[in-house]
Amino acid sequence: MVKLEVEVKVRVEDLAKVEANLKKLMATEVSYGVQEDLYFNAPHRNFMITDEALRIRKSNGKCFLTYKGCRVDNQAKTREELEVEVEDFDKIKLILERLGFKPLYLIKKMRKTFQFENLKINLDNVEKLGSFVEVEGFAENEKEREITVENVKKVLLKLNLHDKKLEDKTYLELFLQKEMIKN
Amino acid sequence: MVKLEVEVKVRVEDLAKVEANLKKLMATEVSYGVQEDLYFNAPHRNFMITDEALRIRKSNGKCFLTYKGCRVDNQAKTREELEVEVEDFDKIKLILERLGFKPLYLIKKMRKTFQFENLKINLDNVEKLGSFVEVEGFAENEKEREITVENVKKVLLKLNLHDKKLEDKTYLELFLQKEMIKN
Repeated sequence: MVKLEVEVKVRVEDLAKVEANLKKLMATEVSYGVQEDLYFNAPHRNFMITDEALRIRKSNGKCFLTYKGCRVDNQAKTREELEVEVEDFDKIKLILERLGFKPLYLIKKMRKTFQFENLKINLDNVEKLGSFVEVEGFAENEKEREITVENVKKVLLKLNLHDKKLEDKTYLELFLQKEMIKN
Repeated sequence: MVKLEVEVKVRVEDLAKVEANLKKLMATEVSYGVQEDLYFNAPHRNFMITDEALRIRKSNGKCFLTYKGCRVDNQAKTREELEVEVEDFDKIKLILERLGFKPLYLIKKMRKTFQFENLKINLDNVEKLGSFVEVEGFAENEKEREITVENVKKVLLKLNLHDKKLEDKTYLELFLQKEMIKN
């Protein structure tokens, strides 16, 4: 089944304050740990231009291969997300490399995830980038997508984050931007 | 760790006879079941020409993604083999398709596998192709590879298959050849 991921992200100064607000809302903490995401580019098209993403994620002793399609809505970023658990990070990395995919960057973050109604709220401390709150939900069709976008907005309001500028770039894009400015 | 797969294959008329010989040799039956292999071609190079293979295998309720590099020795076929278990056949299929890989053929076989010393002996009944015996071993370097090739030859002798012509084509290649002749 194809899942559409709906996601907004805002940069924050103080994750602890957001966490306190989440607890007041009775949101449930579901996971906490380091995530390491290794992003790849393709040999036959440039994912920076096609706005796709392919990554291997290491998280809490598990490993996942994830493909994300291009964004179809920029207000609340919506894209197809396909994810499958794989047995071993190094093996899938080597297979992708043999197929011609090139590792781009490894992005490390400390992520604490809360569940609130049908949404996930991620409190991310991203190495070299800073602190962010991501609110994400999944939809299987356009109607569900619209409802999810509305729910995401409501949560931003409840967390007092509705006045913040939405960050429409992925962590990979923010990282690449930072690297470019530096050089 | 990169593994070199050493493999020979011969076509046989009577798998039961080979199985009886294996039992006399005290080989151990390790698995028995249907295997379904879906082979892919790449968007940026033709695996038929580069002599690579990418497949998803469904076997005994598990699923594997496998990449095989080109053959480096045709006497006893030797090639790099990288394999990783994945959680779900349909999800990894969809990810490969989104990346531009094209499913070629689904090859179904009934495989009974025996272990004899360090080698695996597969008794295969392949849909539309017939019966084959595969003897395979793995090596991590050239010295191990040479020993493995010798051991494979000894097993063929013990199974009275040493006079048979070695089939150097993969099941996919045999299948494609058959389809071409038919059309």
